Amino acid sequence: MKKIGIALIGAGTVGQGVLKILNSSSELIQKRTGVELNLIGVCDKNPKVLEHYPQYQLCSNYTDLIKREDVNIVVELIGGTDFAYQVVKDALRYKKTVVTANKALLSEKGHELFALAKEKEVEIGYEAAVGGAIPIIRSLKSSLISNEFQAIYGILNGTTNFILSKMEQENLNYLEALRLAQELGFAERDPTFDVEGIDAAHKVSLLASLAFGYSVSIKDMYVEGITKISKTEIFFAKELGYRIKLLGICSKEANGIEARVQPTMVPIHHPIAGVMNEMNAVYVYSNYSGPMMFFGKGAGSLPTASAVISDLVYYGSRIGSETGFENNLFHRVKIIPTSEIEEKFYLRFNTYDRPGVIAYIANILGKNKISISSVRQEETKKEPAEVIFLTHKTKEKSVRKAIEEIDKNREYILQPTIMMRIEELT
Amino acid sequence: MKKIGIALIGAGTVGQGVLKILNSSSELIQKRTGVELNLIGVCDKNPKVLEHYPQYQLCSNYTDLIKREDVNIVVELIGGTDFAYQVVKDALRYKKTVVTANKALLSEKGHELFALAKEKEVEIGYEAAVGGAIPIIRSLKSSLISNEFQAIYGILNGTTNFILSKMEQENLNYLEALRLAQELGFAERDPTFDVEGIDAAHKVSLLASLAFGYSVSIKDMYVEGITKISKTEIFFAKELGYRIKLLGICSKEANGIEARVQPTMVPIHHPIAGVMNEMNAVYVYSNYSGPMMFFGKGAGSLPTASAVISDLVYYGSRIGSETGFENNLFHRVKIIPTSEIEEKFYLRFNTYDRPGVIAYIANILGKNKISISSVRQEETKKEPAEVIFLTHKTKEKSVRKAIEEIDKNREYILQPTIMMRIEELT
Repeated sequence: MKKIGIALIGAGTVGQGVLKILNSSSELIQKRTGVELNLIGVCDKNPKVLEHYPQYQLCSNYTDLIKREDVNIVVELIGGTDFAYQVVKDALRYKKTVVTANKALLSEKGHELFALAKEKEVEIGYEAAVGGAIPIIRSLKSSLISNEFQAIYGILNGTTNFILSKMEQENLNYLEALRLAQELGFAERDPTFDVEGIDAAHKVSLLASLAFGYSVSIKDMYVEGITKISKTEIFFAKELGYRIKLLGICSKEANGIEARVQPTMVPIHHPIAGVMNEMNAVYVYSNYSGPMMFFGKGAGSLPTASAVISDLVYYGSRIGSETGFENNLFHRVKIIPTSEIEEKFYLRFNTYDRPGVIAYIANILGKNKISISSVRQEETKKEPAEVIFLTHKTKEKSVRKAIEEIDKNREYILQPTIMMRIEELT
Repeated sequence: MKKIGIALIGAGTVGQGVLKILNSSSELIQKRTGVELNLIGVCDKNPKVLEHYPQYQLCSNYTDLIKREDVNIVVELIGGTDFAYQVVKDALRYKKTVVTANKALLSEKGHELFALAKEKEVEIGYEAAVGGAIPIIRSLKSSLISNEFQAIYGILNGTTNFILSKMEQENLNYLEALRLAQELGFAERDPTFDVEGIDAAHKVSLLASLAFGYSVSIKDMYVEGITKISKTEIFFAKELGYRIKLLGICSKEANGIEARVQPTMVPIHHPIAGVMNEMNAVYVYSNYSGPMMFFGKGAGSLPTASAVISDLVYYGSRIGSETGFENNLFHRVKIIPTSEIEEKFYLRFNTYDRPGVIAYIANILGKNKISISSVRQEETKKEPAEVIFLTHKTKEKSVRKAIEEIDKNREYILQPTIMMRIEELT
């Protein structure tokens, strides 16, 4: 029987889940694994966090707790990048293994923290930082260990996936769907972090590092959220056989690493298009395993805590054993500028219903060497007339240039043109 | 750097994949994990298996190879339950960790082999035995370690999923789709093992053991393959909003463990219904993590080898370390008889187009306390008239009894009634 001493710093939503699981399932875990998880103490500024768990000890000073000799693992569930940063750094300095769900912290300060962990010969577990309960980190690090990765496409944020799902299912506009998400607890009062794609971008940077062995900063990434998605795009996507998802994408291209977050049209029959409401999913292409998808709850107290606990058992088992190391220390790399990436595009032009409009648009697209795969105009009696062009693979900068020129002509074009990426995900 | 000595016994399809990955990716694995996989020798009766890998050593006597002191792990990729059984037993006796893809062996002799492994203080890795590249074993054993499992629904056999997909997509009957699968290499010349559900049943027994902590024998299981599925059912399933999948099912019910393999109608918009062609998927319900699905290639040389390699690194890392144990030793349990399980049913009656038919059927169903959720009869000019009843949840034995009685009346009923389970997978 291996006994692992744990210090829990931060007992909010996820921390409460950890307390519940430790309280209810420690025996089961011990029976299944031979590892005993022993919670030494809990630190939180809220004195009520242990209301339901009087058997655990609340500590007022986190350093006193983490430096204790019987503490093997420090669990950081504070969130944010200030105090959490200090706690993780201190824990590593005391040569404690760290388990965290903090994607922002690892995305922004990971390089420094992983270097410190290596120096101190301890590990950092972060299964809970990406995809909640979904074991995507362990799968990339262990189950797919021999594979070279080609691309990862993720629905990495439950709030935005819920909003997009409700826009489609209940014919709501963005603000109506956001309000519904807030009422049901799937969106924060200030939803910026989620709806602008920042949360997903932090996760993409962690996945890209693991998959490609290079550290990727979200500052270099193109990050677009869902606040500008209209009912019209939701509708046309479906008509054309696609569905709009906020995808976190990273891939290995001939000219480097690509990493971005943006609303993307994906084929409606592709497994990732079927991931609805608050669920998350990660679709992975690798050389030996082939395509693979992991689907599950990406957030919430217990699903996230379940991932934290799995790290406690996994890294707990490894403490003091000669198990090799896990490499998390990667060189920073510049990613390919979005404008250089070749994709298919959906373009919706808001036009006056006049002769010559389609020819005008098609001419400028042709001049910019944008090859068209299909054109669609609904018969309509009112303006604007919506004209939709789908392109073959082409560079984004050509498309942007063409649109800029097209949109100048106020005799044909009524409102700014909408463009969206299409990923065929073959 | 941890160096792990490996003996490979059996270098057929999956073994060749293992050789390819060891040959191409050992350095990458070492860089990522600090573990060096060192192939000491290969045993196979075919002298040509190392044609492309002259750097490895072919051994004629497997016991000479596995007893070598520099061999830490024996990889059994022979298949079958005779010689493979002997090899695994011998390896364990020599205190070697075993990695295998052999679901039949572990399903039939697992109890004895896991007991021997425990006695000798070594481990048996079998990630490759279920779902090919999909890391379902590791996820159940490690990522979901704190969870109690409620149910697992798996598309666990690529051959049958391919056949069912082609029957739908290309409007083929079973034999035509089987022939296509054989031509494309997705079905064996003798497909019995796959199409009769036996392969899936072995996998269900392994999943049920891990999830519920009880050993389940396929001899106790209801196992039905796909050989009797007709184009008519494929068609009506779709009309009714379902799709037919060969599901391996295990679940924890109030009165015990349920485990079975059978063609099942699942809601067409459920993620598992979208798993097409040769792909596999495992859908898991557990108390903390919530619903989760793993999707990927369930067979093939490299996907399966990728899983073998992940076990080599994982169990290799643990050798000689105090990492706790993995419990694989479970008491045998009797499963709930299928007849006692409550499900919804699809019933298709082949009737003469005469007045009174529907009343006749409905009466007998009612008499057997089977509650009807919907009835459907197409307007048709030719006989048989197809009448479809969907039931609410009801015991299978009541349905079988009712059908037996209904089918006796040759004035109404033209051909034996077809019944199929419906799983709503909420």
